[in-house]
Amino acid sequence: METQINIIENPSLESIKDLLKRPLEDPGFLDNAIRDIFLAVKRKGDKALIDFTKTFDGVELKSLKIEESEIEESGNKVDKSLQEAIAVAAVNIRRFHSSQVSETVKCEISEGITCWQKAVPIQRVGLYIPGGSAPLFSSVLMLAIPANIAGCKEIVMFTPPGKDGTIDPALLFAAKISGVKNIYTVGGAQAVAAMAFGTESIKPVDKIFGPGNQFVTAAKQEVQKYGVAIDMPAGPSELMVMADEIAIPEFVASDMLSQAEHGPDSQVVMLTNNKDIAKKTIDAINNQLKDLSRKDIVKESLKSCKVIFFSDIKEMIVAANEYAPEHLIIAMKDKNKIAESVLNAGSVFLGNYTPESAGDYATGTNHTLPTNGAAKAYSGVNIDSFVKKITFQEVTKEGIMQIGKTIELMAEAEQLTAHKNAVSIRLKQ
Amino acid sequence: METQINIIENPSLESIKDLLKRPLEDPGFLDNAIRDIFLAVKRKGDKALIDFTKTFDGVELKSLKIEESEIEESGNKVDKSLQEAIAVAAVNIRRFHSSQVSETVKCEISEGITCWQKAVPIQRVGLYIPGGSAPLFSSVLMLAIPANIAGCKEIVMFTPPGKDGTIDPALLFAAKISGVKNIYTVGGAQAVAAMAFGTESIKPVDKIFGPGNQFVTAAKQEVQKYGVAIDMPAGPSELMVMADEIAIPEFVASDMLSQAEHGPDSQVVMLTNNKDIAKKTIDAINNQLKDLSRKDIVKESLKSCKVIFFSDIKEMIVAANEYAPEHLIIAMKDKNKIAESVLNAGSVFLGNYTPESAGDYATGTNHTLPTNGAAKAYSGVNIDSFVKKITFQEVTKEGIMQIGKTIELMAEAEQLTAHKNAVSIRLKQ
Repeated sequence: METQINIIENPSLESIKDLLKRPLEDPGFLDNAIRDIFLAVKRKGDKALIDFTKTFDGVELKSLKIEESEIEESGNKVDKSLQEAIAVAAVNIRRFHSSQVSETVKCEISEGITCWQKAVPIQRVGLYIPGGSAPLFSSVLMLAIPANIAGCKEIVMFTPPGKDGTIDPALLFAAKISGVKNIYTVGGAQAVAAMAFGTESIKPVDKIFGPGNQFVTAAKQEVQKYGVAIDMPAGPSELMVMADEIAIPEFVASDMLSQAEHGPDSQVVMLTNNKDIAKKTIDAINNQLKDLSRKDIVKESLKSCKVIFFSDIKEMIVAANEYAPEHLIIAMKDKNKIAESVLNAGSVFLGNYTPESAGDYATGTNHTLPTNGAAKAYSGVNIDSFVKKITFQEVTKEGIMQIGKTIELMAEAEQLTAHKNAVSIRLKQ
Repeated sequence: METQINIIENPSLESIKDLLKRPLEDPGFLDNAIRDIFLAVKRKGDKALIDFTKTFDGVELKSLKIEESEIEESGNKVDKSLQEAIAVAAVNIRRFHSSQVSETVKCEISEGITCWQKAVPIQRVGLYIPGGSAPLFSSVLMLAIPANIAGCKEIVMFTPPGKDGTIDPALLFAAKISGVKNIYTVGGAQAVAAMAFGTESIKPVDKIFGPGNQFVTAAKQEVQKYGVAIDMPAGPSELMVMADEIAIPEFVASDMLSQAEHGPDSQVVMLTNNKDIAKKTIDAINNQLKDLSRKDIVKESLKSCKVIFFSDIKEMIVAANEYAPEHLIIAMKDKNKIAESVLNAGSVFLGNYTPESAGDYATGTNHTLPTNGAAKAYSGVNIDSFVKKITFQEVTKEGIMQIGKTIELMAEAEQLTAHKNAVSIRLKQ
């Protein structure tokens, strides 16, 4: 049976918001479950992790931590061709993220006042890699490589064990070439709790990264209240394609399907000013769909798929910025000009030969990206995600003579006498 | 009566953590109150804001928004000397934050693959400025100036009205010279709700900035669950001073007192390798305390003040990094060397003539900084806080031929056939 996708024509700017509304989730419904797990991990430490892994993953762990030798030798169990592919991707990811490293520049504010901002690595970071049907080794590369470039001192990784209690060798291999040595076979909210609060065998981390199911997501939201930072809020994956007459329908269809296979809640939207391309893309979707292994997931996801026709390209751009997609493909003649007007998006793919899956794996950009409209305010994971910028200032005796009066006046007006006094006492000297 | 501050000598590295533990707050205790306020604002919009302002601030608002003319004419009610001081501070803040603007650099990953990262302003930002005993106009400068440099399109400001329903002219003046035109006289969790969800007269924002009381802080934590970003978690203000024999006890005392006057829960810690300096500083604190206007707050805050002596400077550094202070003064001979080993801090002040209050107002660095140990993972507010970095990639036909196989292999190993297919279909062409 074919998937029925209708073309929506020229929606008003007002209705775009409703049309592109993501399914609403009640952010609070998991709170109690999460808090119970947190409490157990805080109280019982490692034992709680072992108990939860038995309950949720059906696995009796002998040890929480993977032996380093197992990571070292993981290559023996991974096809040479896949090893090479992972290595190529790693080089590209390393290259692009290295280009994001910023220099410290001292800024002479005025005579005797020098300020600078220095990027200092976050010392301890925790990376969560989800389990499930397939080993997401690409996420290991995307998180661990920038963590290493940034200079994070301790990198720990958490991932749920497979049904037989082991971790996929490809995942361990990706960890190996990304320089990760501490891997724990724990998943879910209990993994987040272990990273946030620590246990007798695990040191707490300063920031937690990585995708996960709704428990992991809710737990990451919750730990922020305890002062632990997270990379970004997470939601179902999304793709928006902007296409005009130069787009190749078979390509667009393949990109939309690649997004749809992520999960039944994946969001796929096409905006176009060309009805013929829209129709051909829908046909191509139905055509290509037949041969996919994850057909059922794709069909479920496509139920919420939208194809929207706009006569006016300007309105297409407004719609894209309003939606703030995680992934945005621009398969249009003026792709570079259109790219300039992108205000909200996670990662942008330009032209007919830049499929989303290229960025998912190997162009070098990060695939950990803001979903659910978070691209309006959040960046995807990048080098900055693994550092904090500390400001420094040095004022000389001459400097304080110059700026002193300004500070005194402002402190006095804010009724902060002791603030004023800290300057006055220096001016008097 | 004198304030009793004892010197703690050479605590073990283990006990430092306990010694420097901040008072624990139950992050959940306000949740229900906050949710009720959110619900009311979502349901009743502007009317809820007016009702809450009557209940919590005791003010009957005629209008939620300040007339632009009132902002324009605010200078008439502010002393010329204060106007000038604010203008000088604004210039320095503008200078330092402008130096943080980064250029987009295109990165040639390999032949046919180009990636770049572009800083794009967050379109709509909301700035919260607390009310209370004094008008914190300096916070207006610290938030609105970088927002403007970053290019944020809409900047709205919320601040609770004074008892007479008006806003302090100095605050309006600071808004004026920072380019803020939309100011609402609403405070508390209801202001956060209005910024996050919008009302019939207020457009929702993408990110919320600024300090506030525990209601504002809890509300900011909560809105993150609804996809609204915030600058950082907030807690009581903190100062740590590292001092050796070159430190001037009167100066150190004045800095510690300036921190203590913020509130009874302010944290003040001194680390030193010189007992004489420690004793003289404690004497100077008691001496200077007498003349302060906020004596009672200071005395209350000093109850938790710690002065810790270390024979070994290395241990001082470990203690400082473990504490991760919001403000760190280094009044030591080797200040620049010590500064190099700072791993966790919000803002650092070097030498005897760089009091914390200089950075609070006028050196140009931002005073919106991570507290409560958040400096381990969070930066203070800077230009990056007002932008997101969007990644772009362009792969040519030749580029996909080169990288295609790599992507296919990885996608296949992750069992994502449609991801693979998006590349295969292009390679076939």
